[in-house]
Amino acid sequence: MKRLIYLLALIMSSNSFGQIEKIEPPFWWSDMHLEELQIMVYGKNISEYRVSAKAPMVINNIRRTENPNYLFITVNSRELKPGKYTLDFSMEGGESFQQTYELKGREENSADRKGFDASDVIYLIMPDRFANGNPENNSHPEMQEKANRQEQGGRHGGDIQGVIDHLDYLNDLGVTALWSTPLLADDDPSYSYHTYAQSDVYKIDPRYGTNEDYRRLADEMHKRDMKLIMDYVTNHWGAEHWMIKDLPTYDWLNQFPGYENSNYRMTTQYDPHRSGRDFKYCVDGWFTGTMPDLNQGNPLVLNYLIQNAIWWIEYAGLDGFRVDTYSYNDKEGIAKWTKAIMDEYPSFNIVGEVWMHDQAQIAYWQKDSEIGAIQSYNSHLPSVMDFTLHDAISVMFNENEASWDRGMIKAYENFVNDFLYPDINNILVFAENHDTNRLSEIYDGDIAKYKLAMTLILTTRGIPQLYYGSEIGMRGNKSKGDGDIRRDFPGGWPGDANNAFTAEGRTKLQNAYHSFTRKLLKYRKNSEVLHFGKLLQYLPDNNVYVYFRYNEKGRVMVVINNSEERQELNLSRYSEGLKSHISGTEILSGKTLELKDALPIEGQTSMVIELQ
Amino acid sequence: MKRLIYLLALIMSSNSFGQIEKIEPPFWWSDMHLEELQIMVYGKNISEYRVSAKAPMVINNIRRTENPNYLFITVNSRELKPGKYTLDFSMEGGESFQQTYELKGREENSADRKGFDASDVIYLIMPDRFANGNPENNSHPEMQEKANRQEQGGRHGGDIQGVIDHLDYLNDLGVTALWSTPLLADDDPSYSYHTYAQSDVYKIDPRYGTNEDYRRLADEMHKRDMKLIMDYVTNHWGAEHWMIKDLPTYDWLNQFPGYENSNYRMTTQYDPHRSGRDFKYCVDGWFTGTMPDLNQGNPLVLNYLIQNAIWWIEYAGLDGFRVDTYSYNDKEGIAKWTKAIMDEYPSFNIVGEVWMHDQAQIAYWQKDSEIGAIQSYNSHLPSVMDFTLHDAISVMFNENEASWDRGMIKAYENFVNDFLYPDINNILVFAENHDTNRLSEIYDGDIAKYKLAMTLILTTRGIPQLYYGSEIGMRGNKSKGDGDIRRDFPGGWPGDANNAFTAEGRTKLQNAYHSFTRKLLKYRKNSEVLHFGKLLQYLPDNNVYVYFRYNEKGRVMVVINNSEERQELNLSRYSEGLKSHISGTEILSGKTLELKDALPIEGQTSMVIELQ
Repeated sequence: MKRLIYLLALIMSSNSFGQIEKIEPPFWWSDMHLEELQIMVYGKNISEYRVSAKAPMVINNIRRTENPNYLFITVNSRELKPGKYTLDFSMEGGESFQQTYELKGREENSADRKGFDASDVIYLIMPDRFANGNPENNSHPEMQEKANRQEQGGRHGGDIQGVIDHLDYLNDLGVTALWSTPLLADDDPSYSYHTYAQSDVYKIDPRYGTNEDYRRLADEMHKRDMKLIMDYVTNHWGAEHWMIKDLPTYDWLNQFPGYENSNYRMTTQYDPHRSGRDFKYCVDGWFTGTMPDLNQGNPLVLNYLIQNAIWWIEYAGLDGFRVDTYSYNDKEGIAKWTKAIMDEYPSFNIVGEVWMHDQAQIAYWQKDSEIGAIQSYNSHLPSVMDFTLHDAISVMFNENEASWDRGMIKAYENFVNDFLYPDINNILVFAENHDTNRLSEIYDGDIAKYKLAMTLILTTRGIPQLYYGSEIGMRGNKSKGDGDIRRDFPGGWPGDANNAFTAEGRTKLQNAYHSFTRKLLKYRKNSEVLHFGKLLQYLPDNNVYVYFRYNEKGRVMVVINNSEERQELNLSRYSEGLKSHISGTEILSGKTLELKDALPIEGQTSMVIELQ
Repeated sequence: MKRLIYLLALIMSSNSFGQIEKIEPPFWWSDMHLEELQIMVYGKNISEYRVSAKAPMVINNIRRTENPNYLFITVNSRELKPGKYTLDFSMEGGESFQQTYELKGREENSADRKGFDASDVIYLIMPDRFANGNPENNSHPEMQEKANRQEQGGRHGGDIQGVIDHLDYLNDLGVTALWSTPLLADDDPSYSYHTYAQSDVYKIDPRYGTNEDYRRLADEMHKRDMKLIMDYVTNHWGAEHWMIKDLPTYDWLNQFPGYENSNYRMTTQYDPHRSGRDFKYCVDGWFTGTMPDLNQGNPLVLNYLIQNAIWWIEYAGLDGFRVDTYSYNDKEGIAKWTKAIMDEYPSFNIVGEVWMHDQAQIAYWQKDSEIGAIQSYNSHLPSVMDFTLHDAISVMFNENEASWDRGMIKAYENFVNDFLYPDINNILVFAENHDTNRLSEIYDGDIAKYKLAMTLILTTRGIPQLYYGSEIGMRGNKSKGDGDIRRDFPGGWPGDANNAFTAEGRTKLQNAYHSFTRKLLKYRKNSEVLHFGKLLQYLPDNNVYVYFRYNEKGRVMVVINNSEERQELNLSRYSEGLKSHISGTEILSGKTLELKDALPIEGQTSMVIELQ
C-alpha cells in the first residue's frame, strides 16, 4: 500500500517525467510582447493525452503532429502574472497527471535593452580556443567528443570560465562587446569545437559550462559595461539534436529523397532568372551532412526558433545576436524570426552573416533596404557585415603602387556604395573572422600593414569587429584547415610558455601589436565622432587615403599612406574637411601637428588626428 | 546709284550675313512637342540690335549675354505652320535688316519613330577606319588635319560613302542597326579621326561627307530595314569649336582658374561621403585638354544641346542615340536633356555610356531605376551598357577549369543582378567596342572562344552590339594605342590586298569567323524568343552554362561548355526549362537532337537548340 501511494504520488507529481521528457521552453516570462506561447511537450505517446489548463491559463490551441511523442500547446502567456501554472494531462478513462509551467517576472527594462552599436568594438572569440578556465570540464561523460588539444580540429578545452577570467584583459584592451561563436550543446562525434551543429538549443554545452555560467558571463560583462552577443544558428541544427532523431514532423526539416547538399549559391535568393531547382538546393540543401536544414516555413519550427532566441535574451540578459548563415535561410521565415525578436526588444541589435561580394546584395538584407524592396522583401535585420570591405582589406595593403584600381581606391570605392545601405552605422567592419585567413597571415606578419588595416576599421563608419588574437598578430592560413585560423590564444592554457594576456608574457612583437591596438581602441572608446560622426572621404592620391569623421562637436582627420614612400599632403585640397582648423593632435604619436600648408606622412603609416 | 541699290538690297537681304554669321538651329519644324524654340544668332555686336518678329511668329524672350556677339531669341515655334518667318533686326536710329527663319513640315509619323531595341543587332564602326568610299574627301581645305594612313592616330580616309557602299554587306551579315562613332566636324589638328572633340555640331565633317550624305545613309539604311544610331556627345566639345573660341557666356563651360582635368571618378556621382572638390573635378573637370566641358546646368547650353539633338533626329531620320560619357555629365542637366528627347520621340531609344564595374552603379542610370530613386534621381535614359558582362567576357573564356568563382559562373552572376535594372531588355550586351581590347586579341585568335562569347551575347537578354571586324576576328591591343583597336577594315581601301567584304577576299580563318557570326545573326534576326523572351538560367556545372529563352510561342536552350572536356548533361536537371520537349534543332550544326536523358557537348563549344 505504501508503495501504491508512492506510485500515485509519482504519477500526480508536477514534475512527472514518466510521461514528459522535455518541455520547451522550460519556463517563460509574463508580460512579454509575444502574444502567445507555444509550449512543446515531448514524451512517449504524449499526444494521446487530453490537455487542459487551470484558470487563469487558457489553452488557445493544441497541435498534434504525425509523431505521437509531441504536443504543441499554445497558451495565453502575455496576460498572465508571474507564477506557476498547471496543465492537466489525462488519458480517456485512464491515467492523468499534472505539469506545472512557470512564468517568471521580467528584469526591469528588459524590453528596452540597448543592443551593441557603433559605439562598441566587438571581439570575436571561439570559446574552445580562447582560454581553459576550468580543466575539469574539458570532456564530459554525456558528450561524445573528448578533449584532444593535439588535434587541429579537436576540442581544446576552452570554456566560459576562461572567458570570464579574461574579461579584465579585454576591458583593458578597449573592447566593449564580445561575440562568442556558439556555446550551446553540440554532440557531434568530431569537430564539435566549432559548435554550429547543435544538439540541444536550450543548454550550454557542458564542456563550456552551464546555463548559469553563461548568465554569469553576461553579468560579469555588464558589470564592466561590456555587451554579450550570442551567435545564433537558425538555418540548421546538428544531426545529433534530440529532435532530429525523433522528428516532430517530416517537414521540420527541408528534406530530399536522398541527402542533398546546399549549392551555397545564395545569389539564387534574388536571381530573377533562377531555376526553381537551383533555388531549392541553395536554401533547402543541407549545409553539411551533419547539419540538417531547418524549415522555417513550418510555423511550428519558426515559433520554436523565435521563442528559443527570446528565451536566451531574457534568460541570460543578452545584448545582441550574430546570426549564422543568415542568407541561407528561408527568406520569409528568417524575416519573421528577425521581426519577432526586434518587436520584443526594439533597441536590440542583430547582425546577420550575409557573405556576399557585392554591396547591393549585402544591402538587400538590411532592414528597410530599398534594394530588398525591389523584390518586396524586408528582412528586418538591423545589421549586416561589410564583406566587400573585408575583400578589399585582404588585398589592398599589398598594393603599394598607386594605380587606377589598386590600393586604397578599393576602400574608397567600398564606401561609395554606402548609398545602397539603409543604415551605414549598423554595418560590421572587420579585417578577419573565424572563417577567413588571418590578417597577419595575409600580410606575412608585416605589422605596418596590420596598423593600416586597424586604423581603417577602427575609424571608419560602422561597428568594428576584431578576432581574438588580432591584437597580438596571430597568424593562420585557412588553406591549412579551419583549425589553423582558430589556434589557441597563447596563455589561455595552464603551462602555456607564451602568455599573451600580460605585457610580461607577450613577446616584443606581440606587445607592439597589442599596444598599437589598445591605444586606438582606448581612443575610439571615448570618441563620439568616431562612433556616429559623418564620413567625408577624399579620392586617394598616390595611394594615400584621407577621410574625416565629424559631427557638431568635433572632427577627426584620418590619413592612411599605403604607398612605400613618404608623402606630403597639400592641405588646401582638404579644406572642406579641415574647415577652419589649423592644428590637431595625432592620437597614435601623441604629437601636436600644425595643419596649415603641407602635412608629411611616412610610407606605410597612418595618422588619426583630432582637430583642434 | 546702281551700286547703292545693290548695297541696300544686300542690307535688306533675308540672308544677310553682314551682321549674322550663324543662326542655330539653321531651321526648325512646326508641330514639334518642344514648346518653344531658342534661336541662337551670332554676329559681330549683334546684341546691339533690337529684334522683333513678324506675326504670327511671336518672340517670347530675348536673352543677351556678356558677349555682344550673341542673341538667344525664343519664339513660339510649336503653334506655327510650316513656312518662312521674318525676324526684324534694327539698330536704334541706324541700320536694320531682316532675317528669314524657316519652319519645315515634319515627315509623317516622325514623332512616333521606333528606336532600336532587343530585336536588333547593332554594329559599331569608326567611320574613319571602315571604308573609304570617296578618296576625294580624305583631306579638306577647311579642316586642319590632313589624311595620313601611315599614322596609327591619323586620319585614314574612311567616310560616309564607304559605309553606304557596304550596307549590303552588313545587311547580309544579319546586322540590323549601325552605331557609327561621331561624324560631326572635328577640327582638332591631330587625332581628329575619333571625332569626339567637335568643332561644329550642325555639320558633318567634310572629310566624312555632307549633311546630305548623312541623311542619305539613313535613307539607304531604312530601305534595307536597318536603323541608324548617332553617337552624341553632350559632355564636351572640341577646343576648336567656333563657340569655344568666342564663348557666349563664361559659364557656357565648366571652368577653373587654370586647366583642370576630370578625375574620371564617376563614382563621385553617388558617393554619400564625397568631398565637393572631388565631385566637381569629376563632372566639371575637362575630359582632355582639347575637350572643354560643357555646363549643362546653364539653360542656354542645355537648350542648345537639346535642340541640336532633336534637329539631327528630325533632319536625318535617326533611330537612336548612343551618348558618350553619359555619367560624366551634370546629372540633373543630362536627365533634362534625355527627358526632352524622349518626350519628343516617346518610342525612340538612347543608350548611355555608363562605364562602371558594378551593376547597382550601372542600373542607377537607367530610366525609373529604383537604385537612382534612393537618391531621388531619374535619368530618363532608356538604355545602358552591360559593362560588367563585358568584364566577365574579357576573362572567363580563359578560365576553363571549374571553380567557385571562375569561368561561366561569372556570366551567371552577372545576370543574377538583373533584378537591379528596371528594364533588362534594354541593355546593350557586347564583347568589345572602340575603347576596349579586341576580343580576338584577348583570346589570342582562338576562334573557339570567340564562338562561345558570340553565342552568349547573341542569345542572352538585351541588345547585342558587335564592333566592326568582330565578324572576321580582327585583333587589336589597347596598350599599343587606341589606334591598334581601331585598325582599318581590310578591303575598305582601294588596293587593300585582303578584302574581307567578300567571301573570296577573306582568308580561310576570316571566313570561319564570318560564317559562324552570320549564321547566328541570321537566326537571331527572326527569333522573337531571342529578342524578348524570358531568361531562365542554371548554375553552371563543371563550367557548362545552360539557359533558356522562352515565351508563349517558343523555347530556345543554349549550352555553353567552357571546359576543355566533353561533357554529358543530365537533362533531368533542366526539366523546368525543357518542359515537355524531347527534341530540338541545333542551329549552329543544323542537326536534330534528341533531348531525353543525356546531352553530350564537346569541350569549348556551344549549342543553340530550338526546342520542338
